[in-house]
Amino acid sequence: MKPLTGIIPPIITPLRARDELDIAGLERLIEHILAGGVHGIFVLGTTGEAPGLSYRLRRELIERTCRQVAGRVPVLVGITDTAFVEAVQLSHFASESGAQALVLAPPYYFPNSQPELLEYVQHLAPELPLPLFLYNMPTHTKTIFEVETVQRAMCIANIVGLKDSSANMVYFHQLVRLLPQRPEWSLLVGPEELLAESVLLGGQGGVCGGANLRPRLYVDLYEAARTRQFERAAALHAEVIHVSATLYRVGGHSSAIIKGLKCALRELGICDDFMAEPFHRFREKERARVRQVLAELGITAVH
Amino acid sequence: MKPLTGIIPPIITPLRARDELDIAGLERLIEHILAGGVHGIFVLGTTGEAPGLSYRLRRELIERTCRQVAGRVPVLVGITDTAFVEAVQLSHFASESGAQALVLAPPYYFPNSQPELLEYVQHLAPELPLPLFLYNMPTHTKTIFEVETVQRAMCIANIVGLKDSSANMVYFHQLVRLLPQRPEWSLLVGPEELLAESVLLGGQGGVCGGANLRPRLYVDLYEAARTRQFERAAALHAEVIHVSATLYRVGGHSSAIIKGLKCALRELGICDDFMAEPFHRFREKERARVRQVLAELGITAVH
Amino acid sequence: MKPLTGIIPPIITPLRARDELDIAGLERLIEHILAGGVHGIFVLGTTGEAPGLSYRLRRELIERTCRQVAGRVPVLVGITDTAFVEAVQLSHFASESGAQALVLAPPYYFPNSQPELLEYVQHLAPELPLPLFLYNMPTHTKTIFEVETVQRAMCIANIVGLKDSSANMVYFHQLVRLLPQRPEWSLLVGPEELLAESVLLGGQGGVCGGANLRPRLYVDLYEAARTRQFERAAALHAEVIHVSATLYRVGGHSSAIIKGLKCALRELGICDDFMAEPFHRFREKERARVRQVLAELGITAVH
Amino acid sequence: MKPLTGIIPPIITPLRARDELDIAGLERLIEHILAGGVHGIFVLGTTGEAPGLSYRLRRELIERTCRQVAGRVPVLVGITDTAFVEAVQLSHFASESGAQALVLAPPYYFPNSQPELLEYVQHLAPELPLPLFLYNMPTHTKTIFEVETVQRAMCIANIVGLKDSSANMVYFHQLVRLLPQRPEWSLLVGPEELLAESVLLGGQGGVCGGANLRPRLYVDLYEAARTRQFERAAALHAEVIHVSATLYRVGGHSSAIIKGLKCALRELGICDDFMAEPFHRFREKERARVRQVLAELGITAVH
Repeated sequence: MKPLTGIIPPIITPLRARDELDIAGLERLIEHILAGGVHGIFVLGTTGEAPGLSYRLRRELIERTCRQVAGRVPVLVGITDTAFVEAVQLSHFASESGAQALVLAPPYYFPNSQPELLEYVQHLAPELPLPLFLYNMPTHTKTIFEVETVQRAMCIANIVGLKDSSANMVYFHQLVRLLPQRPEWSLLVGPEELLAESVLLGGQGGVCGGANLRPRLYVDLYEAARTRQFERAAALHAEVIHVSATLYRVGGHSSAIIKGLKCALRELGICDDFMAEPFHRFREKERARVRQVLAELGITAVH
Repeated sequence: MKPLTGIIPPIITPLRARDELDIAGLERLIEHILAGGVHGIFVLGTTGEAPGLSYRLRRELIERTCRQVAGRVPVLVGITDTAFVEAVQLSHFASESGAQALVLAPPYYFPNSQPELLEYVQHLAPELPLPLFLYNMPTHTKTIFEVETVQRAMCIANIVGLKDSSANMVYFHQLVRLLPQRPEWSLLVGPEELLAESVLLGGQGGVCGGANLRPRLYVDLYEAARTRQFERAAALHAEVIHVSATLYRVGGHSSAIIKGLKCALRELGICDDFMAEPFHRFREKERARVRQVLAELGITAVH
Repeated sequence: MKPLTGIIPPIITPLRARDELDIAGLERLIEHILAGGVHGIFVLGTTGEAPGLSYRLRRELIERTCRQVAGRVPVLVGITDTAFVEAVQLSHFASESGAQALVLAPPYYFPNSQPELLEYVQHLAPELPLPLFLYNMPTHTKTIFEVETVQRAMCIANIVGLKDSSANMVYFHQLVRLLPQRPEWSLLVGPEELLAESVLLGGQGGVCGGANLRPRLYVDLYEAARTRQFERAAALHAEVIHVSATLYRVGGHSSAIIKGLKCALRELGICDDFMAEPFHRFREKERARVRQVLAELGITAVH
Repeated sequence: MKPLTGIIPPIITPLRARDELDIAGLERLIEHILAGGVHGIFVLGTTGEAPGLSYRLRRELIERTCRQVAGRVPVLVGITDTAFVEAVQLSHFASESGAQALVLAPPYYFPNSQPELLEYVQHLAPELPLPLFLYNMPTHTKTIFEVETVQRAMCIANIVGLKDSSANMVYFHQLVRLLPQRPEWSLLVGPEELLAESVLLGGQGGVCGGANLRPRLYVDLYEAARTRQFERAAALHAEVIHVSATLYRVGGHSSAIIKGLKCALRELGICDDFMAEPFHRFREKERARVRQVLAELGITAVH
């Protein structure tokens, strides 16, 4: 596998009802995203509500996604789990379904110390049939792969990169500084608001939730930043910030981003906006606000 | 089911290897605990490393525990899960295995707001075949059932109590104040260091991890507090604090309590001390310290 | 100085306007509190809004309080400061004004490590002209005197006790366990909701904010707990919890306790409810709710 | 006053002993920094250990700094204080001493809600004789000026900008988005590791602690970013990250940055490295490591 770079959207999981995939919606969503020129697809991440889905549905989602993508881009599968054994089992299912890589955040129930976390990764990686990305998500997992831990993890053969959703660019820059140690590593940034600067200053791409809705915007920003078209990058970055300051602030709980994305995708006719518990789709009031934001953004149909 | 009161130890999960129960150890542990006069057994809690176990092993543990306990005391089963559907499935397995009640902490990956949490409980409770205890564990789940949320949850018929591991007695006393609203509710305290005061001031019992090792100590303390034998309660409380200040501080990570308990149980010949990832049993240095603590505590054999 | 035990109210600071003491109010407040049988008076604590007051006003308050109390009970003065030199200067002013002891929380701007905190106390204590109480207030200072640090601080001659406002009784019990090392130490608890259990289980008293309003209630509870009149203690404790669950929850910010106390004291005609920035007295809506709570509590005039 | 842009170092406070300025050191430090081409000088910030200094020394520092700078660049003075009255008094002293602007973080003892914080700023700003910068420093003050609060504060005439030390670039970009509302506002970034991206994407400069040591490096980076010399900016940014990953990680407490800077300045013969309590200069072991880092960075004498 060559280094993974560019925009790899963490796809939302289209649902029709509790424990029921919106199959047609999933197919439309994948085609919509691929049409935007993305470089990969990531299923079962935070945006995909992975921890809220049954294992049966997780497997169905992996299978259908791999089939629909059909090798056009790499498929990455989140295997983050509090149980070591379940993570390994899902990794094998992903491999057999045709996925190209795995993504793993720290086990997220027990607080972990860094030595425990490193040992965990050292034990898990050799059991996996595919290359692995580490995944920082401290707001949800209560821990981070500290710089020294990442440096040690870089010595593990099948760990090929890291996705950082810490939103801490001081930390991110310290990881970039480690890259010469293993040049083929991919350092991807989570929050799309940080895509411009991370690519300008040494990152390899982004796992942008907003690319569910407007894949082309993030692909264009990535390309502009990568090729040092600075004014273009700045203009696209401003557009990304505008989406963040409007669409993602409807409602007000920390679940607003996923709810906003799902609601917008429903408005565009791409897929249903049913959510896995403990979350619920926006009610009419928030939905009206989403419609208004979409109109202001000039997004009135799929494009 | 009549109100559950007294000491309900959250049993550790005896393991021989990854994904392999220490069956004989589990049987010895249950007998050891029951011999101490406890009022219930709680499997698949935090002390039981539940989130770190495969679903297969969780089911095996429920089945074997119910069979071994054989109705002598109620068995409570933790069904805390990030996925609604998995929690429901496990609850049915528990019911069919003969368990008497369920225990549920908030879904612990996504940060939850209180309205989301209340709605979650309102949707889940009616799907469950057994009475339910709510479970506060904010250090691990990042959220708490706030007082107003508990007050609302008290209106749900098959929610029968709450186990509070917040270690915040200001909060606990506010819950006690709500009890007249539903007198048959059981308010249980998690941290054993707070057993004395919670029972003295209105709580119904404790889910004491230390009761894996010395069940009688906690049962005696509960009885002394319940029956207002104050000097006896104070003396037993001091012993509980001594265990906490010595055994639970070996090592130094937040996993020290479970590691210390498992190590001590191995030293006593009750069960193996293998742990589920991301944790690992104490190495020889910490084990020597545990032996020393046990000697100081006068615990040199099963009793 | 013999060990300080009992109820030492942290008095609110009566203000008439920005940087202006309500002198008559202060005198009435002190007499009201002393009439309740308290064992000391603590000025310039958190409840006293100390960090929000000018140094000039702090000195005026110390002087007037010492003069009004006139030796009837010991006066404790808070000298917590981010600047070492200012803390020392205030301690000398307090001593010259006739105060009996000092109270010190960690310097609260910079995050402190435990070795830094211990060294700070080791350097400061010898510069002080009066006995010193340490003061845990982690919600405001971001740090706590850890058990090991307290154990070391117990070796410093003029440190005579600790006031713990952490609301963490697991921690408090560990401190009680250290007391035989220095039997004359006073361990006082901050949150009044924890007064009953802390005195029942080894503490020496409480620094109860509510004693500004109803000093006798807390004195009675302290005496009941100290003399093991258990049923009386439980009944008074329930009353304390009721105040906490009603009066202290008017409004909704973390400043609600001080605002509620000041508002209630104004309603009772004891002193003005002006507050130091960044806080402001309750507006009419909250004031009406306080009146209602006072009526429910049966507090309609000074007693 | 025209908008303040560029590099405004937060100068460390050279001390010879407790409560004693290193006067000659202060003069050398100011000349060293000005020789680097900086655009302003900020005294009494976090890096200047302001909260740890006596008020007397704060005034001496303001006076001497203004005299030494002598109008060559603007002098900004930190007036952050838990007491409203003290902040106002210091602001007048700063104005009379010839300072050009003030810097204010939230009062940092009591937790503040956003309405309280906004009201505080609305009351304070009109009392000040100089233009004011708001200052975000959530790790130390426990709160942040939220986006909506900043938007409201932008309506206050003499608030002219904000220094953001939150290290949260998602937040920073949201503030940049507000700038068209008041184009003369200066948005400055605190952490020097974020200088490159903040200036590339809409910020006006940085308050870089490292500019105490190497002012030219940060000035050059600022200019490269401002004028879109991208490759040069990236190279200088990498050097900034290298300083951060080496010099600032000697020792290990959160005070390491200030300690490292002071130690390095002493090694270069610029000023003493005495620190205000609760901190202390590096001992010989850390000092040797600082010498090694300076040698690796090629900094062996003042330049």
